[in-house]
This record gives sequence, C-alpha cells and structure tokens, in this order.
Amino acid sequence: MTNLHINLERLKQDLLALFKIGYDEKSKGVTRLGFTPEDMAGREWLIEQYKKEGFHAHVDAAGNVLGRMHADKPACVVATGSHIDTVISGGMFDGTLGVLAGLEVMRVVKENNISLSTPLEAYAFAEEEGRFGGMMGVQALIGELTPEWILSAHDVNGVLLQDEMRRCNLDPMTALEARVDQGYFKSYIELHIEQGPVLDTVRKPIGVVDSISGVYKWIVRLIGKSNHAGTAPMDMRSDAFMGLANFANEIPRIISEEGSEKSRLTVGKVDLKPGHAHTVPGEVEFTLVGRDTDKEVMHSLADSCRKVLSAIARKHKLMFEFEQMSWLDPQPMSKDIISLVSKTSDDLNYPYQVMPSGAGHDAQHMAKITDSGMIFVPSINGVSHAPDEWTHWQDIEKGANLLLHSLLRLAK
Amino acid sequence: MTNLHINLERLKQDLLALFKIGYDEKSKGVTRLGFTPEDMAGREWLIEQYKKEGFHAHVDAAGNVLGRMHADKPACVVATGSHIDTVISGGMFDGTLGVLAGLEVMRVVKENNISLSTPLEAYAFAEEEGRFGGMMGVQALIGELTPEWILSAHDVNGVLLQDEMRRCNLDPMTALEARVDQGYFKSYIELHIEQGPVLDTVRKPIGVVDSISGVYKWIVRLIGKSNHAGTAPMDMRSDAFMGLANFANEIPRIISEEGSEKSRLTVGKVDLKPGHAHTVPGEVEFTLVGRDTDKEVMHSLADSCRKVLSAIARKHKLMFEFEQMSWLDPQPMSKDIISLVSKTSDDLNYPYQVMPSGAGHDAQHMAKITDSGMIFVPSINGVSHAPDEWTHWQDIEKGANLLLHSLLRLAK
Repeated sequence: MTNLHINLERLKQDLLALFKIGYDEKSKGVTRLGFTPEDMAGREWLIEQYKKEGFHAHVDAAGNVLGRMHADKPACVVATGSHIDTVISGGMFDGTLGVLAGLEVMRVVKENNISLSTPLEAYAFAEEEGRFGGMMGVQALIGELTPEWILSAHDVNGVLLQDEMRRCNLDPMTALEARVDQGYFKSYIELHIEQGPVLDTVRKPIGVVDSISGVYKWIVRLIGKSNHAGTAPMDMRSDAFMGLANFANEIPRIISEEGSEKSRLTVGKVDLKPGHAHTVPGEVEFTLVGRDTDKEVMHSLADSCRKVLSAIARKHKLMFEFEQMSWLDPQPMSKDIISLVSKTSDDLNYPYQVMPSGAGHDAQHMAKITDSGMIFVPSINGVSHAPDEWTHWQDIEKGANLLLHSLLRLAK
Repeated sequence: MTNLHINLERLKQDLLALFKIGYDEKSKGVTRLGFTPEDMAGREWLIEQYKKEGFHAHVDAAGNVLGRMHADKPACVVATGSHIDTVISGGMFDGTLGVLAGLEVMRVVKENNISLSTPLEAYAFAEEEGRFGGMMGVQALIGELTPEWILSAHDVNGVLLQDEMRRCNLDPMTALEARVDQGYFKSYIELHIEQGPVLDTVRKPIGVVDSISGVYKWIVRLIGKSNHAGTAPMDMRSDAFMGLANFANEIPRIISEEGSEKSRLTVGKVDLKPGHAHTVPGEVEFTLVGRDTDKEVMHSLADSCRKVLSAIARKHKLMFEFEQMSWLDPQPMSKDIISLVSKTSDDLNYPYQVMPSGAGHDAQHMAKITDSGMIFVPSINGVSHAPDEWTHWQDIEKGANLLLHSLLRLAK
C-alpha cells in the first residue's frame, strides 16, 4: 500500500498557480490578506480545481472553502486542510501547502478508485493569518465565534470585518451558522511548513507535532530615574535599562530551572525613555513573550519571570509593573494521531522528529472538537512569512505522501 | 576678611527676574535657546543690570556678554561666568547662577570699595547648551571657532547659526574676532550647579571640581537573525538583544576592572529590529557613552568594551560593528585653583568635596588658555535641565560667597 503516492508535479503546478494570485513582482512575495479581492480570487481558483476533478466544492457561511468526496458515506468526516490567506509579502507554502496537498490526496484517492468508509474533506479556512485577529474561519467552524466579535473585528486600517464580508457576498452574522455539530468530524490532520529551523538543522524531512505551544504576552515596565549620564555615578543610578539587561541575562537560567527544551522566552520590543545617548534611561517598557507546550511549565516560567523582575527592580531601585496582554493554553495533539502519523512515517521510511509547534495553526482549534494532528516539513533556514520562505520539493512530496497515507488509514 | 559676603536677597531677585524671561506657565520651565529672541532678551536684561551698577558692559563679536570692573588695571584679567541660554523647559539655576553670582561679586567689590590689582570680568557665554552644538561663545573667545563651522552650524530644525546671528545684529564671520590674545586672562572660576546627585547625597554644600570628564560616544550595531519567537528554539537563535543584554551586564565588571569611581558607561538609546513582540530581534543599534577624568582610563574602558562586545558577538553568532561618533579628552582643572578654592572653602567653614564634573562646562574650554576651576553647589536629587531643577538658597549663598572670596584672592 505504501507504493501509492501523490503526484508531485501536479501539486507543484497547483502551488505555482496559486502563488501567482496576489504575487508582487517587486517584493517577489504574495499578498492575499483575508477577505481581500486577492484572497477571494484564490478561493475561486481553488473551487474551480475541486470542481474540475468532480469533487463537491463549497463555501460555508464563514468563508471557509471545502472540497469533499465520498460525502454519501454515513460516517464522521476525516478532514485535512489549512488556509490560503497570507501575510503581506508572504511565501509560496505557508498554509497553501496543506490545502493543496488535501486536494492532491483527494485526486489520488479518486484516480486509484480507493474505497473509503468515511467522507473526506479538505478545508481552506478563512482568515488564518490575522488581518482581523486570525483563525476566524476555523473558530466559526468549531462554534467559538461570537456576534460581538463579528461586529467589532477590524483590521489595522480600521476596516470592519463585517463590511469586508458583505463585499465578498457573505452575511457576517450568518458566519455563526458555519458551526458543525458535535461528532461531525472523526479526525483532522494538517500538513504545514515548520516555520522554524529545527527540521532543516537536524536534516529530517518530517516533523510530527505533539503539541501546539501555549503563549503569553506581557508588557513590562521598569521605572527608575532619568539622570545626566555624566553626572550620575554608577552606584547612584536607577537605570531602567540595566534592570532589563539583568533580567534578560537571567532568561537562560529561568528556562533551565523552570522550563523545558520547548520553552521560549523572548524580549522582542524595547522602548527606553527618554532614549537619549547622554541620559540614564529612567524608564523602559518591553514585551516578554513566553511559550511552552505544558501549561504548568508556562505558569512556572511566568512565576519565575515575575519573581526575578521583582528582585532586580528592588536591587536597581526601580518600580516594576506588568500587564498580561494575552494567555493561550497549550493545545496537545491527539496521542492516537501522533502515533498513527509516526507509524505511517516509519512505514514510508521517512525520518521524522516528534516536536512542538511554536506557532499557532488552525489545528489547535480543530483539536478542541476532534482528534487532530499536524505534519511539518522543513523550512529552509526557518524562514516563513517572507518571499524567501522555501521548502525543498522532495520534502513537499514526502509531507504530502505522509498526509495521504495517514488520511487513508483514518478513512479506510 | 571672610566676614565679607554676598547679598543673597539681591542675587535671588536677579535669578527670579531672569527666570521670568522665557518662562512658560504650562511646563513651569524656562526656555532661552541660544540666539532666540528670549535669549537676546535675557542678554539685554543682563546688560542693563551691569550698567545700572556702573560696570562696563559689552557684547563681543560672538555674542558673549561681559561685565567688567577695574578695567584700567594693567594686569591680566581674573574672570568668572557661565551662560544664560537654557535647554527647552530648563530650570532657574543652570548657567544663570554662575553669571549672576559674577554680577553679585562685582557689586560686593564695588560697595565695599575693595581695591583689586587686576580687572575683574564676568561672562555670559553664548550658546553653551547646544542649540548649534554648544559652547560656541567660549570657543570663539579662546580662538577655536573656524569659518567652516560658523557657516555650516545649524539647529535641529535646520536653522543656520549664521542666519540667527544676523537676526541678532551679529556678523557671523566676525565672531572669529572675539578671540582674546594669549595671556589676556590670569584665571577663571565658574560657579555652577552640580547637575548630579553626589553633593545632595553626601550633604555637602560645595564641590571643588578637579577635572571635567572626557567622553566618547559610540553607536554600536549587533546583527543576528530575526526569527519567529515561537518556532526558533533558544539555542538556534542569533538574538541581537540578548547580545546587548549580556554586554550591559558586563558593564559593572568592565568598570571595576578597567575604570575608576569616576568612570561612567551608559546605554541610553536602544533600537531593536524588527521590534515586534513575537519576533526574535535580528538587529540592535544602541548608544554607548563612556566617561572618565583620565584619558588612559578612557582608552582602557573603550578597549575593554570593544573586546567584550566582540566576544559576546561570537558567542551569540552576531555581527558586531561600531562607529565612534565623538571623543573628547578629559580636561583637568588647575591644581592652583583647586587648592585656592579648597583653602578658601576651609576658611569659610564650608564642607566641600573634591569631585569630577561629568557634564561639560564653559570652564573646560577656558582651561585651555588660563588657570581654571569650578565650584559646584548641590542639585536636589541630581535634577537639572528640567523645571524641578533646584538648589537650596543657603547653598546658593555659600557657593556665591566661595566664588567671591576665591576671586578676591586671585585679584588682590
């Protein structure tokens, strides 16, 4: 059975064709922000591909596009998918790979007359990348959208989601009806590029995702005293930046004491006040983003960060305050799916690594209502969300074959 | 002789009167940027005060205002002074104290019919605070201005110094003629607020400045790699900010190994790229300002900073580059003046501390052509260049009395 395989050339042509929709010659990247004309053109192109093959194609009330086969089987649905909206100047694979591999899997099933005992669905979820906050389509599907959110969601330019949906001939409030019933799905597997450097570094073609990291974001302020950098002796300063530097220096220790190899702590944004070369910075505001795949570990990391910051603030005579802007629990993938995908990868002789996903994906929402899993393929140098996002074609092929055989095992 | 003293009430009235020129009710600060109408109004007011007392008053070709007494004595001039231009929303004392104390000293000499063997001059140097770079007037006096500089100097809004000078009825190139001849001065003493927290902390009313710190300014860049903060494991990052944090953490060690208690190393401005909470910062540009009163120590500090930054860059896989934007050697004050002022302070029973000046002052240029010294009085909480800059009146009185007696000893 493992000699069945996807047609890489066909998948490649699809990826290249979709890349052209919203492609920009100047940046060499593709831009299909959710619910823009480019995004809609991509969706229409996708629907055509399904129809050309004779599959049932459908846009649900939230704008999710799905292709379906064996819809008549009286069983729960085995599903795959991802998204085809992109960031500004994104690459060819983020999201689109999972959607088009789903289409390719369906073509292989069809042309080989494989008989399945469940319906098979491939989703292109709406607005994953975050123009209006992200993962809107999949949240509609699992019933997590609220009327308030639909009416208030807007992009960075203040454009309302509801206006954009109407322009796309979608009734905003009807998006709530995209919700599927309890038990509609049997399982969900998403193929996606890793968007990180791990697989490229360890030179393995496959990642089997065991969990999607939880994440918290703090805005931290340390407030000391601005002083003339010449007249204030080192030991009479309340230098807010030195407080931050001391804290950042403790991050490796915090992770080794409280975290795991899956822990991440990142200071990504720093604002000093007044921010002059000749003035001791009296105030610093910075972001601290923490991640782990274990909720308890996330709490330990957060507790430790708070204690270390408090102690450093006392030492430097600083005031310390922080605001927790968001907290998202980790989402483990289904043990059954992890084991099925790993076994399938072994059978296909594809080296794989079981690993967390540090980035968020539609699968983290699907996991709330059905057994879910993810397959990663390597991102060269870990790059994504950029025109130089790339994955070797042989890895694309392996990822899609693994998706094919995993779905077949679930749907048989 | 030490029972002779300045009239604090008179000095206070002068300080309050000058504070009103350019005072802003909203900020409660005073703004007399060099060569603005407010600055000129301050200068005119000052000239009136000299004339009212019968002193010779004069604006030189660079816009320096000087009051003079005993001009007929055939000897080198004993001088005092400072500046009356301010920063935006400055305080009452920075610069003005030294100028108005000079006026008060001359009044005391006059009303007590004290006979001096040298002329006495009190200067209000033009453009000390830096609208056009700073210390323009004193540099004209000591002959360090160049025609190129005069023609090219401009403020942050692009206003040319030469245009502003013409507006003030000064011929720009003629400023070069403000230069005094070799041997014109016998000595110079400047009274100034400390602008730092030392005297306020040790509760001494007087600082006798032994040296004005040298200063260098670097712009440092550490360049690594931007990554998704979720997908990039901690050990696969080239996090430019972590490089900076490591370096900042070494600053205390660098100073204790290579520096002195007068050393200062300050990171005052930090720019991260891309500066997003969820992205590992791939690049950081920051300022590093180093100071010490010893040129060799300054070089040791700079060498050590360079080595530590190189080592950290290697460790974090970062590229390290820096640009030295400026380097100013330390300027020692005259040993004779230090000793005379200290002795005088002892005789007046004023506790004092011999200390460096971390900030720049007109005295550092006067020191190049004549025996020079400085007297500091405490700045409460070390604040200056702000509306809450304050010095207790009893300290103002002691500082001015010490200036009086020190000048008398030099001029007798």
